[in-house]
Amino acid sequence: MSALAIDVGGTNIRAALVERDTSIRASARRPIDKSGVDALLAAIGDCAAEALAAVPAGSPVAGIGVAMKGFVDHRTGVMVASANLGLKNVPVRGFLSDRFGHPTWVDNDVHAATIGEIQYGAGRRYRDFLYVNVGTGIAAGLVVDGRLVRGAANLSGELGHATVNLDGKPCHCGLRGCLEEVVSGPGIEAWYRSEAGGAVALRASEVLALGATTDGPARRVLESVVEYLGVGIVNLVNILNPEAVILGGGVFAGTGDFAGRLESFVRSRALHESAACLDRVGVSSLEPGSVGILGAAALAWENGTRS
Amino acid sequence: MSALAIDVGGTNIRAALVERDTSIRASARRPIDKSGVDALLAAIGDCAAEALAAVPAGSPVAGIGVAMKGFVDHRTGVMVASANLGLKNVPVRGFLSDRFGHPTWVDNDVHAATIGEIQYGAGRRYRDFLYVNVGTGIAAGLVVDGRLVRGAANLSGELGHATVNLDGKPCHCGLRGCLEEVVSGPGIEAWYRSEAGGAVALRASEVLALGATTDGPARRVLESVVEYLGVGIVNLVNILNPEAVILGGGVFAGTGDFAGRLESFVRSRALHESAACLDRVGVSSLEPGSVGILGAAALAWENGTRS
Repeated sequence: MSALAIDVGGTNIRAALVERDTSIRASARRPIDKSGVDALLAAIGDCAAEALAAVPAGSPVAGIGVAMKGFVDHRTGVMVASANLGLKNVPVRGFLSDRFGHPTWVDNDVHAATIGEIQYGAGRRYRDFLYVNVGTGIAAGLVVDGRLVRGAANLSGELGHATVNLDGKPCHCGLRGCLEEVVSGPGIEAWYRSEAGGAVALRASEVLALGATTDGPARRVLESVVEYLGVGIVNLVNILNPEAVILGGGVFAGTGDFAGRLESFVRSRALHESAACLDRVGVSSLEPGSVGILGAAALAWENGTRS
Repeated sequence: MSALAIDVGGTNIRAALVERDTSIRASARRPIDKSGVDALLAAIGDCAAEALAAVPAGSPVAGIGVAMKGFVDHRTGVMVASANLGLKNVPVRGFLSDRFGHPTWVDNDVHAATIGEIQYGAGRRYRDFLYVNVGTGIAAGLVVDGRLVRGAANLSGELGHATVNLDGKPCHCGLRGCLEEVVSGPGIEAWYRSEAGGAVALRASEVLALGATTDGPARRVLESVVEYLGVGIVNLVNILNPEAVILGGGVFAGTGDFAGRLESFVRSRALHESAACLDRVGVSSLEPGSVGILGAAALAWENGTRS
């Protein structure tokens, strides 16, 4: 039996048939259409149909899981608002379950990735852990007693505008010293441009990799990212007392000893007793490129097996 | 049926027989004896015996609940370490259950107060809320889906050394800009002494009350406390998306519009969608003087009715 997993990213929609063992049988890709609610739903539906066409006749589909950026009401399957997509109130579940007749679950991308970690990654070893995703922003998934913490309206995990430096530099949101000003793909890239003199453009993961092996501007950016992200994680470790902190998002791919530096920082700054509970601070074992699809599949498995 | 509630505070031990409706039938008090593990246990035991003497023959006792400062392993009932008491590895549960033959549960004071809130206070209206206690330090109880979040080793809720100002003033712990340097009874009192010129000694609640009605040093301290505590709470609200934030601890008693100022700050700074989920940011409805005893009783009720 397969789950149909749909990952609605910043620029593309991916759909894939995912087996219980995470192997992928068929996949499809469409550019995202942000021109309106109906256009977005049509593009998601067409991408899903292409992947579903690979299901042999009579072979069951467990359900559809959809991961997407923004605020998602997981109970209704409506994407309530997304700055990234510029759209509001997109009835993703209603549209897909009507069109395909399969039970459908929709969630925020970082929540879905965290449920993916519970099923396929860190959750196989830990009951209490933090998943911290750094991409265009920074967000966390909190896992307590083996379950994702959702909060009152499924808005949990917003780390981007956590204040760690009240006297620090202004953030575009109007506050000062927000984590996201420093710890995010765009934040790292902008800071490196200003440190390195403007002309040099590197991707965030390249800045961190360069900083690990050379002195100079990239090293200074790396050290600040370790300090800011480290403090953000220390605050969460002291509050939640997890067994592990798992880093996700493409920013950490191939960045040398970044995770090691971060782990040292967290262990030295967190409360001694809480630091002693940390088995691991490290990068996710799941491929950054497949986390979106695996998270979406995990939504279908989690809900499909429970109901 | 009564529960025997024991509150081991900073200077006194209180024991009380508490009914299910929170009425108190008998209570006893002893000065705390920090001279050693056996002396502390003997003082707790004698205080408990005095309260238990009021139980009529044949009348059942549901169990014993003990709330105390420090790191407590709630599964074994051992107080592992307490800076406040200067003692380690105190086998409170073993001692009391051996001496009195009643099932006994022991927990950290803020965890116990949070379970008290679940049973008698905010928990009657909310499934997801934060309890924030400001006393000699600052700590939180996180309630998710109606249950206290404990973490891997029951260490959750440590807010004191949450960094909110990386460029701020040094904390005695070696870090900078820790919440507790500003937001704690001693922090508020020390800051007021330095702002007011050294000679004037006021208690923290008096500083906040004075700042609410006059300009000058007390107002400056009040505004900084609102900002620091506000940022600490905003960070938690963004992460946990609760329905309410409940303030506990004597520092907030009689402080005029402090809670109102704090609520305005939190609502204006938290993510818009998360702020909209907040029904209330306000002071606990439970008496500051009885929270310790009610929390200890709640430990006995919670566990006694479950097992």
